[in-house]
Amino acid sequence: MDREVALQTVKVQLTDHRYQHTIGVMETAIVLAKRYGVDVKQAELAAIFHDYAKFRPKDEMKQIIIDQGMEQLLLEFNSELWHAPVGAFLVEKEVGLKDEEILAAIRYHTSGRIGMSLLDKIIYLADYIEPGRRFPGVDEVRNLAKDNLNQALIQALKNSIQFLMKKNQPVYPDTIYTYNDLVKLGRID
Amino acid sequence: MDREVALQTVKVQLTDHRYQHTIGVMETAIVLAKRYGVDVKQAELAAIFHDYAKFRPKDEMKQIIIDQGMEQLLLEFNSELWHAPVGAFLVEKEVGLKDEEILAAIRYHTSGRIGMSLLDKIIYLADYIEPGRRFPGVDEVRNLAKDNLNQALIQALKNSIQFLMKKNQPVYPDTIYTYNDLVKLGRID
Repeated sequence: MDREVALQTVKVQLTDHRYQHTIGVMETAIVLAKRYGVDVKQAELAAIFHDYAKFRPKDEMKQIIIDQGMEQLLLEFNSELWHAPVGAFLVEKEVGLKDEEILAAIRYHTSGRIGMSLLDKIIYLADYIEPGRRFPGVDEVRNLAKDNLNQALIQALKNSIQFLMKKNQPVYPDTIYTYNDLVKLGRID
Repeated sequence: MDREVALQTVKVQLTDHRYQHTIGVMETAIVLAKRYGVDVKQAELAAIFHDYAKFRPKDEMKQIIIDQGMEQLLLEFNSELWHAPVGAFLVEKEVGLKDEEILAAIRYHTSGRIGMSLLDKIIYLADYIEPGRRFPGVDEVRNLAKDNLNQALIQALKNSIQFLMKKNQPVYPDTIYTYNDLVKLGRID
């Protein structure tokens, strides 16, 4: 799918602010894809569509999670987590995008997963560090991402877990599983 | 079982340093039990025996975890976690203590669990805040424990998770499940 067609397709789903964020994620994902030898076109499309479902009504997302037999535990956690798996589903259904690697990167861009692919990691990180992002710790992750994708991802996950704990919010188990998976890998590498 | 008999039974299993820690946990657990209306005798015995297996050889603990069909995931995590469930098993088998509430408090004193009993919480916290403990954040948990057992426990869990993340160590899933369980309760209380 052509970049311009993809961008026009996603633009109508998003607010202006979120569309600008999406452009930032796309540009960052392309840089990371070139740096780490990932297919640039896949990174571009996954980035463009990563927030496709961001503004769907909660009820619609909830119904899709139930009807499609997705992980029901999601419903017990913050609805911010829902747009990622629902997005992967809708991008396939409504946009007709079939590339399973792209869909997986969209599906896991908020929670992470055990055994993340390079493309998954790039989309997760691009979403975290794109130039529009401003929060404590983001520059550290930006710097790490230049040289070590795993270290950058570990730091981003730690920041996210710490952020949730500061607010007494629950931590979605997949996020801890992803962190555990990466620090264990880190020991052998 | 008489306090003195229990102390003599556990003393031979521990180093002097760890025995002093056990005395501290016992005294703290008794204070907390009185404060929160938990059976003082149960708290005393659970505290005395909580580290019963602390100095068993790793091989022996590993074999017990396998033979007794305990959670095998333990074996993938730090062996510091093993003495708690193995201790509960050995306290029943070797000491003959049968009180399931006491055994559970021993079993979960390192990891926590979903749906911790008051006794579980008291032993977990007494182990964390007994007077011999000196580490950043312990005084905050000591103060919280005077008025709110759950808030104290949440803070202790957060500190533990943060401590592990600082060292790039994996976090045992039950510890996050326990934290999630308590902050969710916290919202309804």
